[in-house]
Amino acid sequence: MEIFTFEALRGLAFDVFTAMGCPLADAHVAADTLLSADLRGVDSHGVARLSGYVRLWEVGRINAKPDIRIVHESPSTAVVDGDSGLGLVVGPYAMGVAIDKASQAGTGWVSVRGSNHYGIAGYHAMQALARDMIGLSMTNASPLVAPTFSLERLLGTNPIAVAIPAGEEPPFVADLATTTAANGKLEILQRKGASAPFGWIQDASGSPTTDPTATSRGGALLPLGGDREHGSHKGYALGAVVDIFSALLSGANYGPWVPPFVSFLPLMADLPGKGIGHFFGAMRIDAFRPADEFKSHMDRWIRRFRAALPVPGQSRVLIPGDPEREISAVRLVEGIPIQDVVAEDLKKIANKFSIKF
Amino acid sequence: MEIFTFEALRGLAFDVFTAMGCPLADAHVAADTLLSADLRGVDSHGVARLSGYVRLWEVGRINAKPDIRIVHESPSTAVVDGDSGLGLVVGPYAMGVAIDKASQAGTGWVSVRGSNHYGIAGYHAMQALARDMIGLSMTNASPLVAPTFSLERLLGTNPIAVAIPAGEEPPFVADLATTTAANGKLEILQRKGASAPFGWIQDASGSPTTDPTATSRGGALLPLGGDREHGSHKGYALGAVVDIFSALLSGANYGPWVPPFVSFLPLMADLPGKGIGHFFGAMRIDAFRPADEFKSHMDRWIRRFRAALPVPGQSRVLIPGDPEREISAVRLVEGIPIQDVVAEDLKKIANKFSIKF
Repeated sequence: MEIFTFEALRGLAFDVFTAMGCPLADAHVAADTLLSADLRGVDSHGVARLSGYVRLWEVGRINAKPDIRIVHESPSTAVVDGDSGLGLVVGPYAMGVAIDKASQAGTGWVSVRGSNHYGIAGYHAMQALARDMIGLSMTNASPLVAPTFSLERLLGTNPIAVAIPAGEEPPFVADLATTTAANGKLEILQRKGASAPFGWIQDASGSPTTDPTATSRGGALLPLGGDREHGSHKGYALGAVVDIFSALLSGANYGPWVPPFVSFLPLMADLPGKGIGHFFGAMRIDAFRPADEFKSHMDRWIRRFRAALPVPGQSRVLIPGDPEREISAVRLVEGIPIQDVVAEDLKKIANKFSIKF
Repeated sequence: MEIFTFEALRGLAFDVFTAMGCPLADAHVAADTLLSADLRGVDSHGVARLSGYVRLWEVGRINAKPDIRIVHESPSTAVVDGDSGLGLVVGPYAMGVAIDKASQAGTGWVSVRGSNHYGIAGYHAMQALARDMIGLSMTNASPLVAPTFSLERLLGTNPIAVAIPAGEEPPFVADLATTTAANGKLEILQRKGASAPFGWIQDASGSPTTDPTATSRGGALLPLGGDREHGSHKGYALGAVVDIFSALLSGANYGPWVPPFVSFLPLMADLPGKGIGHFFGAMRIDAFRPADEFKSHMDRWIRRFRAALPVPGQSRVLIPGDPEREISAVRLVEGIPIQDVVAEDLKKIANKFSIKF
């Protein structure tokens, strides 16, 4: 484990995106978006993926100078074509369109095609907060998840994020994969050689397993709920809604056809759309009621939930967003711990592009 | 178990609502909405609740002649005040507003206060289908659910429904409580004297239990996921989002303050809002892309998922909405089976209002 400052990692990401040929403004946006994952403790989605983005660019699947544009719109909606740009750039552009639509029409809803991995869902949703709006963000992803009763992997971990402003309290920020456990958590167990709880994965024969490496041998992640008896059909339905809003409304690829993040896996034949898909929403609070009124009720809501009696053995009830905000505050001051293997990887990329790091 | 025709049960519901003083048009809407639950196999939310609505009307908590109105709006949003009307009437009104907004602005989003129990979430979402729109529906409900790590019940089963039109295939209709198991499933186990799986409920001390009666002795339903290790913080976050969209945007009651459905439980002191809250959405497909294009991709999506290899012991992978549509088709022809205790209850209500049944 090596500790880096936020500035050092952000600087590296910015330099790498610039070296790939991204315009300066895009490189800034992409670096901020990527680093938000490391800051918030979602280590699987931050600089650990930087070399993955580079490889996708090298094989021509990421366009560093995309012509991102609105291809269809109504007063409260738009479809954005990302022109194979970095999802880290396409996402903020499309969320900006949603916010602009909302400031005119009360709400804005944007479905995106032709994009790539966009970092953490929560970051995009949070862009609405400063405008006194509720933000929503979701994305499809390469197929790792077996629907209830399916032997085949047909959905991604398809996260949903919702960011809601409060008054004196910090905002409510939910950011959840529609699976029992995010893939990043499985990777941690794989590195440790530890077992996963039952309900996270099935093996290649469709049986429950605790072996976290089963997903690399024909197994699959399971939808939130884990099995039918515990409501996995609900996690499956939510993941499906994310896929449909992100890709079928926009014309991106969906289900088993979503392009993989890793550059060495080939694209499938007969693709139904372009790139991967996202879906963003923004709702102006005062399109419903005065923002200060809403925010004071959010404070009351948050305080009541925070004050709930905890079960024995637990110290407190958390509000969605609490853990990530607390990690963020620590990491901004104390630095960001990076796994040795990731640190090595970062140094290699820096060398490759002759970046001082 | 007694079998009744759809027409007989719908007729009874219509006559009861009329006897309560509902205008004829409202009684029709309420009866259709209520019966959609019995048709779709959600027996806990249909005529089994008819006497509950009557009792709420008797104690003055349901207004049979409400002045339902829009109290705030923007091009794509509205807040509706249900004036304590039947949720079975207020819900369809508000969903109609969402659909009207969508036909103008591309999408429509309506938060509702001053309402009551609105039947099944899915029925409202499905109103959008015939207009080539995607429908969304959610509602808060009286507190039965303990957030992750909480000993206290602070949320309802807070369902989310999403209805999406397809082309030749039947529509995709997801309708899910944000808990591991809906309360209705627990009631079935209670009647049978059977055990619940671990992960559905906790007892009054916050420990996992298989005793389905624990919820009536200080226990609680658990959020989708069941426990922290299996992602219950995600079910908690989703239930919280439903509460906030339904009640904090509109000015309804929220969290532990949501009024109970049963008339003998008193309202809490210091209520933060009016009645219970709902949230509806409608999105015009062609605000994103031509509807026929979208629907042919929905057909491809549905067919691919339906064709998935099933795990051993299962015959097929289902599309959300399949089970309810299949039950509906059978019950329209063969009639609706009603538990003896519910049938007795219906006969008592019929007697009370001198309705032939």
